Amino acid sequence: MTGPSSRRPSRRQLLGYAGAAAAGAAVTGGTVALGKETPHAAEPVVARDLSPYGDHQPAVAAATPKHAELVALNLLGSTDRAALGRLMRLWTADIVALTAGRPAPGDTAPELAVPNAALTVTVGLGPRVFTLPGLTTAKPRGLDALPVMRHDRLLPAWSGGDLLILVGADDAVSVVHAVRRLVADAAPFAKAVWRQTGFWNGTGPDGKPVTGRNLFGQVDGTGNPAAGSPEFGATVWATGPEWFTGGTTLVVRRITMNLDTWDELTRSEQERAVGRKLSTGAPLNGTAEHDELDLEARDADGRLLIAENAHARLSHHSVNDGRRIFRKGLNYVHDTGATRESGLIFLSYQADVAGQFLPMLARLDAADALNEWTTTIGSAVFAVPPGFREGGWLAQRLLS
Amino acid sequence: MTGPSSRRPSRRQLLGYAGAAAAGAAVTGGTVALGKETPHAAEPVVARDLSPYGDHQPAVAAATPKHAELVALNLLGSTDRAALGRLMRLWTADIVALTAGRPAPGDTAPELAVPNAALTVTVGLGPRVFTLPGLTTAKPRGLDALPVMRHDRLLPAWSGGDLLILVGADDAVSVVHAVRRLVADAAPFAKAVWRQTGFWNGTGPDGKPVTGRNLFGQVDGTGNPAAGSPEFGATVWATGPEWFTGGTTLVVRRITMNLDTWDELTRSEQERAVGRKLSTGAPLNGTAEHDELDLEARDADGRLLIAENAHARLSHHSVNDGRRIFRKGLNYVHDTGATRESGLIFLSYQADVAGQFLPMLARLDAADALNEWTTTIGSAVFAVPPGFREGGWLAQRLLS
Ligand code: HEM
Ligand code: HEM
Repeated sequence: MTGPSSRRPSRRQLLGYAGAAAAGAAVTGGTVALGKETPHAAEPVVARDLSPYGDHQPAVAAATPKHAELVALNLLGSTDRAALGRLMRLWTADIVALTAGRPAPGDTAPELAVPNAALTVTVGLGPRVFTLPGLTTAKPRGLDALPVMRHDRLLPAWSGGDLLILVGADDAVSVVHAVRRLVADAAPFAKAVWRQTGFWNGTGPDGKPVTGRNLFGQVDGTGNPAAGSPEFGATVWATGPEWFTGGTTLVVRRITMNLDTWDELTRSEQERAVGRKLSTGAPLNGTAEHDELDLEARDADGRLLIAENAHARLSHHSVNDGRRIFRKGLNYVHDTGATRESGLIFLSYQADVAGQFLPMLARLDAADALNEWTTTIGSAVFAVPPGFREGGWLAQRLLS
Repeated sequence: MTGPSSRRPSRRQLLGYAGAAAAGAAVTGGTVALGKETPHAAEPVVARDLSPYGDHQPAVAAATPKHAELVALNLLGSTDRAALGRLMRLWTADIVALTAGRPAPGDTAPELAVPNAALTVTVGLGPRVFTLPGLTTAKPRGLDALPVMRHDRLLPAWSGGDLLILVGADDAVSVVHAVRRLVADAAPFAKAVWRQTGFWNGTGPDGKPVTGRNLFGQVDGTGNPAAGSPEFGATVWATGPEWFTGGTTLVVRRITMNLDTWDELTRSEQERAVGRKLSTGAPLNGTAEHDELDLEARDADGRLLIAENAHARLSHHSVNDGRRIFRKGLNYVHDTGATRESGLIFLSYQADVAGQFLPMLARLDAADALNEWTTTIGSAVFAVPPGFREGGWLAQRLLS
């Protein structure tokens, strides 16, 4: 498993870069004075591409990418279990090449494949895949479209889908290029039904990883189990059915955020809606981002610091029977002429949609203070197969 | 004037970063071995934000940003010369703060203003501004909407506009935040009529600046005058009217690119359409990107290497009476449900639209090989006022 820092240039990697240059440089009083260009200066010395191989699809546990695109596709009527296997082999070959910055087989714009863009591809299978002959008994438990919540205003155009590709990278050109390749290779098997693009800034001004903020300005992601922790594994990785061990499920919710009415609130009203501070993301009972939420803490007048309807209370594992999810939201903006819609492409990974995600969603739908400024307009769920090893392919245990 | 490298982390700046760390590091055999964290490790040591001050608006001569958004606004009926001056003072204050990574005055999401995002803002004035009482004699020569070309399929939704804001940064969240602030502050004076977002990758795998590629996969920007060269100044900066000295004009053309039919060509057909190689961007008569175009060179059979209708021939200064332009395109994708449109937000700076840009556009419209795969669907022109100094403001000489 790879931690969040594996995707971005770490301090050490930046040093690696300077290190190569330092062959022609002299260190003087804490600054490095550049002597002359080193002979190998043009070679990439910062290796930022993740390996495509492993027990899990590698982007799941990695940091949120700067840019991402999600495409949902529906299977053509002719696509049966065997054909789906052919598509997965094609996609696997594409992924192995593209994530290393090499052109995909038959790439029509090979120069747009560049290394060091930290490109990742995650593939998911929607519920309808498990209605195909030969696959009905393999369905992960609870992998069904979510029931419509009271506050939902779902649009078919942003909902459902039989297959998902989620491409992330540091660079939008790389994302667009990889998606185009993957969708083109899928043409004999499946057709795109929706596309969503999002962005995230998980790097601080000093180049170090930070949690990042959504378009309300909130630090978003603090409560996540830390990649590599025991909770992370228990939250995210499925343990069955057998083919699905090491896989996970992904919920995609397209949630509009009404920035105009949100902006009419005072900062303390905004902070009460979540139960955390805007400045640091600290809980209202604490001072630092990762301080523990104290759901019992009260102010001098005896009022709960973290309100009954605060988002961070209602979504907290302690009020959800200990159940957690792993969120990796992406900001989005969507323009229709002069009008802009802003929001969050809410992404949640969990071993079990029905057991972990749905009860929490229902609890939030019933009482979350944030509901006043957010509206879910799209919803989809996917089984994310485990990773593959060299020579293997995506969902091989399901489809071979 | 600032060169293209001033926007991205230069070699020297990366060294600067490592340099600070090097206080606790030792150079050994060409690699920098990290000793321990330095006390001030959290402070930004890579200064990537451009100064907002200068003779020119600073983004014009700087490298193409990774992300950018353009918003065109139309003046409200009540906005006269004096009101426009008030707006320019407001925007100036916003720009000074936001480009330094500080919240704008009255910022409703102050935490989304972050330093080191290399944020820049460029402001333009459309032709209708110079019909306002008191401004009619100040109109830059030739600042008129472009005539409709034979191949144009202009949509009003992507055309025209009285004011332009063009915000660029390394980070999309910063762009969205700055645009929101600037549009909100403009509300008493002007209303958004179109928005376009684009992206560019001007950084090679080794972190060094490269020209970058459009979505056809072509190296795009090679023929530009180099920032800092005498041609650059002569091409870009206006010398009159007096208030406009140090300003420039910006043409915005939204051009769809038909990637599907383009992909049906062989690589050599694609290369002939432009007259340059896909691999390196070198002219078909040469081997390296910056080799001179030789418009007379012929192959063994006596055929011109750079065809009569090749884009790089017809746009070359030698067939345009020595006139040049300075292009800073941005790739775009635009989704309507499952359908994606891809293209180029073509941006061209020149001292004089009518004298430099229009004749070249007409020549390309008449004969350019690329016309088969490109269609212009939006068009707008703006006067980009000169820069301002500390204490001054945008278009001050025009409006005070
Ligand atoms: C646009 C909609 C949403 C916004 C703006 C939002 C924002 C936030 C913020 C600011 C936090 C506190 C910081 C953090 O721990 O990340 C948070 C926490 C959390 N949210 Fe959301 N959220 C949204 C939707 C959802 C949905 C739909 C769910 C699940 C159904 C959810 C589940 C959680 C969870 C589990 C936590 C962590 C709680 C903890 O254990 O501390 N959120 N969210
Ligand atoms: C989607 C539309 C367009 C595409 C894909 C495109 C692509 C290219 C490419 C690949 C080059 C060669 C590399 C370079 O020098 O940058 C180029 C050069 C050039 N293009 Fe375009 N271009 C487009 C539209 C235009 C338009 C509308 C104009 C002006 C009216 C224009 C003016 C130029 C100029 C001046 C050069 C440099 C020629 C030289 O001096 O070498 N282009 N373009």
